[in-house]
Amino acid sequence: MSTFDLIGFDADDTLWHSEVYFRRAHAEFERIVGHYVDLSDMRAHEHLLEVERRNIKLFGYGAKGMCLSMIETAIALTDERISGADVHRLVQLGKDVLTHPIELLPGIAEALDAAATLAPLLLITKGDLFHQESKIAVSGLQSVFPRIEIVSEKDQAAYARVLRECHVRPERFVMVGNSLRSDIEPVLALGGAGVHMPYHVTWALENEHAVDHAHARLRVIAAPSEVPAALRSLDAA
Amino acid sequence: MSTFDLIGFDADDTLWHSEVYFRRAHAEFERIVGHYVDLSDMRAHEHLLEVERRNIKLFGYGAKGMCLSMIETAIALTDERISGADVHRLVQLGKDVLTHPIELLPGIAEALDAAATLAPLLLITKGDLFHQESKIAVSGLQSVFPRIEIVSEKDQAAYARVLRECHVRPERFVMVGNSLRSDIEPVLALGGAGVHMPYHVTWALENEHAVDHAHARLRVIAAPSEVPAALRSLDAA
Repeated sequence: MSTFDLIGFDADDTLWHSEVYFRRAHAEFERIVGHYVDLSDMRAHEHLLEVERRNIKLFGYGAKGMCLSMIETAIALTDERISGADVHRLVQLGKDVLTHPIELLPGIAEALDAAATLAPLLLITKGDLFHQESKIAVSGLQSVFPRIEIVSEKDQAAYARVLRECHVRPERFVMVGNSLRSDIEPVLALGGAGVHMPYHVTWALENEHAVDHAHARLRVIAAPSEVPAALRSLDAA
Repeated sequence: MSTFDLIGFDADDTLWHSEVYFRRAHAEFERIVGHYVDLSDMRAHEHLLEVERRNIKLFGYGAKGMCLSMIETAIALTDERISGADVHRLVQLGKDVLTHPIELLPGIAEALDAAATLAPLLLITKGDLFHQESKIAVSGLQSVFPRIEIVSEKDQAAYARVLRECHVRPERFVMVGNSLRSDIEPVLALGGAGVHMPYHVTWALENEHAVDHAHARLRVIAAPSEVPAALRSLDAA
């Protein structure tokens, strides 16, 4: 018997590659804007991050908001000189992210199967509802998860609501994910446990957190193959 | 005792005004594009609807997708001649829709209170997760609904999933909303009941349905004040 009644998994960069496609779009954005302005001075990357941070309050997370922020930033950086053809390229960058291939992280399918022998699995992810649903469908992992939650922000209130609806006490919940801010911090704060599996790139806005890496209910792992051992270790603690 | 275990309400154009703001954005879009091309020939409206229909498969519903479709359509209609300043205006149109005021339909609060005496209420709406959540929060109606579901498409599968999670049989569910395609057709098909409350404007893509207006489990009403009587009539049938 496990001490966990529910095991949560993040999706982007935990089940499949995601951030790399956003990075690719950002690089292409800088290349396009670089035709108009000297980027070594303008620091398009910081400007975009600033616009994205401001627009998150209006757009939420996801590729459509990123695309609109790119267009807005490009207009600002070029003093409205950007051409219709280049705006069209920016729209296409957003579409490219919305249709990126779903490539599972090596070993994640086996890790999910092993975890499912301990407790039911919950997929909980934030971002664009429509895109997240599409990715889940394409991933083929839908059937592993009795419950799937797509939320606008993975904060304490969101986890508390989902756990309440699932009739699971936070102490009996463990969350596996790559983001300390979205996957680990709120769950530990509620009294749950966490397995942090860093992805090799992290979006700047996900780096804002105050997680104590020595927390007794936290394990840090390097790859999906280590998920079962981390869950067993938390179970035994 | 009611024969209903759950009463669903749509949100946009059922609880509060919404489509009017999209219409206003479309009109402004046509005004902007009209500076470049003769719209009496180009029929910007039809072109935009065509692009929106195509992009729905990629963007889903909502103001961000509409905004990106407007930008794409404007670039196409102007042969990429649209200026950065005008693209900026189109981005602002999207932001305007995302921040439109939430004005409740007259009598809807009283109708919800009356309905809540019959059975628990469910708010079920489609579209942009983040924007829908914002509107619900601003509306002040959140506390009336024990459960709120934001889905990407209001089809039979979505209603079936929600009812399953709520442990409610479709025959004991009634849905109140302004869209025959999204609120009524799938619920009647599952064996539930429907109260259709048309809004004075309907998005073209919501007009595609095959609902029999003489269906025994359907009532059509003109205003929120008629919701309680319609529910009682369905209850008695």
